[in-house]
Amino acid sequence: MIGTGLIGTSIALALREHGAGVWLADEDPEAARLAVNLGAGEPLPDAAYADVAVIAVPPDAVAATLAGAQARGPAGFTGLARCYTDVASVKQLPVAQARALGCDLTSYVPGHSLAGREKHGPAAARADLFLGRTWALCPAPETSSQAVETVTDLVRACGAVPMRTDAATHDRWVALISHAPHLVAAAMAARLEGAPADALELAGQGLRDVTRIAAGDTALWTQILAANAAPVAGVLAEVAADLAEAARALTDGPEGPQRSKSVAALLDRGQSGVTRIPGKHGGQAPEFTAIQVVIRDQPGELARLFDAAGAAGVNIEDVRIEHSPGLAVGVAELSVRPAQAGPLLDALESEGWPVRR
Amino acid sequence: MIGTGLIGTSIALALREHGAGVWLADEDPEAARLAVNLGAGEPLPDAAYADVAVIAVPPDAVAATLAGAQARGPAGFTGLARCYTDVASVKQLPVAQARALGCDLTSYVPGHSLAGREKHGPAAARADLFLGRTWALCPAPETSSQAVETVTDLVRACGAVPMRTDAATHDRWVALISHAPHLVAAAMAARLEGAPADALELAGQGLRDVTRIAAGDTALWTQILAANAAPVAGVLAEVAADLAEAARALTDGPEGPQRSKSVAALLDRGQSGVTRIPGKHGGQAPEFTAIQVVIRDQPGELARLFDAAGAAGVNIEDVRIEHSPGLAVGVAELSVRPAQAGPLLDALESEGWPVRR
Repeated sequence: MIGTGLIGTSIALALREHGAGVWLADEDPEAARLAVNLGAGEPLPDAAYADVAVIAVPPDAVAATLAGAQARGPAGFTGLARCYTDVASVKQLPVAQARALGCDLTSYVPGHSLAGREKHGPAAARADLFLGRTWALCPAPETSSQAVETVTDLVRACGAVPMRTDAATHDRWVALISHAPHLVAAAMAARLEGAPADALELAGQGLRDVTRIAAGDTALWTQILAANAAPVAGVLAEVAADLAEAARALTDGPEGPQRSKSVAALLDRGQSGVTRIPGKHGGQAPEFTAIQVVIRDQPGELARLFDAAGAAGVNIEDVRIEHSPGLAVGVAELSVRPAQAGPLLDALESEGWPVRR
Repeated sequence: MIGTGLIGTSIALALREHGAGVWLADEDPEAARLAVNLGAGEPLPDAAYADVAVIAVPPDAVAATLAGAQARGPAGFTGLARCYTDVASVKQLPVAQARALGCDLTSYVPGHSLAGREKHGPAAARADLFLGRTWALCPAPETSSQAVETVTDLVRACGAVPMRTDAATHDRWVALISHAPHLVAAAMAARLEGAPADALELAGQGLRDVTRIAAGDTALWTQILAANAAPVAGVLAEVAADLAEAARALTDGPEGPQRSKSVAALLDRGQSGVTRIPGKHGGQAPEFTAIQVVIRDQPGELARLFDAAGAAGVNIEDVRIEHSPGLAVGVAELSVRPAQAGPLLDALESEGWPVRR
């Protein structure tokens, strides 16, 4: 593991849980020491030779780190490891730079682990950071299939789901789902800079969510955005155009339904866009039907409810419980496959549960 | 309580916790009945006379509802209640409409409870929705100080912090911290409408947070945005200009540090803006301890789990289920009061459940 920040240390922890031996290195010796203390692995010895070297450094540093690692091995070896991968969030730039530096591309599998937190550094690392998450692998034409296989195994060992694509497609996709949203959050948050403190006292969870990622590291994000400039700029230009149009629609022309029409259309498009995002860990399939049941806040109540569902042969796919502290009742929202909603409603109603579809 | 949606029912629940009697009415009888079942109060009788009538309806409906309520009282009374307040998220419009309809403004305290959820309807209501949250009160020049006092007491009974301001200032502030962010989230989410499904598989928590509020109700939000058009348009135009400038900076001119400079500046401004948002006030539920249990994805499995918890006398406060599609197991995360975590762990372990604290 070269680089023991949030991602590198999380990968190391995940691999250790899997029983793998891990060596850790970081240009900041304190970060490497902290990762060792967290149980993520042992310090990289001088003469080491690994199956895979994971390069977990910022995008601009990937190619040079790869070149250094490949040059480092004793005579007869192809460097520090049998094969190499990285986890940077852009892929065309490090591949082009690695090619320019004359790196061995047959043993290099460009990758991107799509997981993160707004915190950084080894202390924020979690072995389960990648569980169920997608992990893109973008082999270059030169990359050997054996290297791809080895890195795919590593990805699976971290609990992630490997997705093969090419670097250009990857970069276009992450511009849309990660890089542009970062700048959109920043542009909204920038408007708060000069706001009266009392206005900010009114802020709710919505504003916090929209702007949360704007708290990210400026230097790292400037690097990422510059490395994926054209696809990011394309998305931003479209968002800017929609917002400018909404601003015009709200103030131009006579009041009335026509004025709100394009605003309503944008809201509708936003709504249909947001519902396309798969649930966290892909687990929240959109096709489930939700059934709400009023429950008392006491031991055994949920067991009674699930007993009733189990007796009806219905598999509860997900459950969320809402209740206010201190109140004697709450609402359980049960998600089931649509075909099972009817039988479940019947079963619950026949037992006297207050349900609402 | 006129209107038993998310906000109305939450206020009713909070007031009930405070020992107050609450009558409930809604033009949708099912919504009112569910609120009654949740313990939020009793159905509004024909000849009722309350200390305060809370009008929890969309902005466009506030003035007409107020006029109806004030007309409704028996001779000698000023209507349904001694005084009136509303909770709509714009304030100039309902006040102007109430004045135009000839409502009694001395007994009307325009208000806005700054709390919400992406869900709506009475089932999503929570008595603690307003705990520590700001609640704006914007008395008109005509509003009597006695009415303001009564409504201020109600706000405090809900656990909220009253903030006095005027309707125009209120509307400018919420444009910045609520209404414009909603359209910004929608504009970003709208870009996902035509995205390849594989691209959305890469989506992480950042995209989910930025776009979450875009799932809101289009009709309600179109109404809100149209009712606060000029201040919202001002904020949107500035955000659009920043994003258009960032798009230009990323692609125009020669590559190099100059190109990234204005992007870095926007990221810095965003970072300093986001840190100005005060921390969430006391609204968080008491700290629960989370226990993770590996479960099989089959009927009856959750019932068995909750049976075990119920048998141990442990009340599950919340539960979240995570599972990856296609996997035969998932993880149920049970939230319990800290003192109950030990007994629950013991009980589950003794029955052979794979648990993790």
